[in-house]
Amino acid sequence: MLKRIDHVGIACRDLDAAVAFYEATFGLTVVSRETNEEQGVMEAMLMVADAPAGMSYVQLLEPLTADTPVGRFIERRGEGIHHVGYGVADIEAALAAIGASGIRLIDARPRHGSMGASIAFLHPADVGGVLTELVESGRHAAGSP
Amino acid sequence: MLKRIDHVGIACRDLDAAVAFYEATFGLTVVSRETNEEQGVMEAMLMVADAPAGMSYVQLLEPLTADTPVGRFIERRGEGIHHVGYGVADIEAALAAIGASGIRLIDARPRHGSMGASIAFLHPADVGGVLTELVESGRHAAGSP
Repeated sequence: MLKRIDHVGIACRDLDAAVAFYEATFGLTVVSRETNEEQGVMEAMLMVADAPAGMSYVQLLEPLTADTPVGRFIERRGEGIHHVGYGVADIEAALAAIGASGIRLIDARPRHGSMGASIAFLHPADVGGVLTELVESGRHAAGSP
Repeated sequence: MLKRIDHVGIACRDLDAAVAFYEATFGLTVVSRETNEEQGVMEAMLMVADAPAGMSYVQLLEPLTADTPVGRFIERRGEGIHHVGYGVADIEAALAAIGASGIRLIDARPRHGSMGASIAFLHPADVGGVLTELVESGRHAAGSP
């Protein structure tokens, strides 16, 4: 079901500083920056160099306000790893199978994620404390059905 | 410098239960189980299906005792994501470059990791709260220099 580690989501207080750090220290390159009001974050996706078919990213997340999931995470735990996202081929099929196994779905239906992806989160209390995201990459090029 | 997300390290209280969960829920397969006395863990590496050149894994970690880094992590934060490991081609070169940038190295020299890899940890306080591991896969087949 899981095709790759799509990304590791990292909560930070200062996105610009975190981006500069990952660029300078690890040689990563930003491929996308977005603000996601629904999730309450500004984010940057940094491509992990040489990752193959189905890219993998470091996703840096700065909360828009303290009263957001990532803002509360930082208040409670400090900066650090917030979640892991796994690539799947068919997110609706994956959610159906996982939901049928009894795991609570934060998102029963996929919503919009970074870079045109469809995403959904699983409840960490049912996944051993791991906030787990499924990601189906944006795949329909213009003109495709 | 970073070639891929080698693994996400996940702290759990019961390795057998966590392995069974990841197998049943996500269809992952265990490719290695080891006890690492030096790190105070029993661990399982589960291949993330279809991950390409340079595999990616979910690494499940059960502390051997409460008084180990992973044991203290669980006591403090509960089960969950413990660290991220990135694949590098040359771990000694990577450590030299990262150390020169002023980041404290938990391991100034590589040590033995899972499946014959050479690994080293960077200090999370210098990496935005992220316990970061570098991994150079075991690459020398029998007979190679």
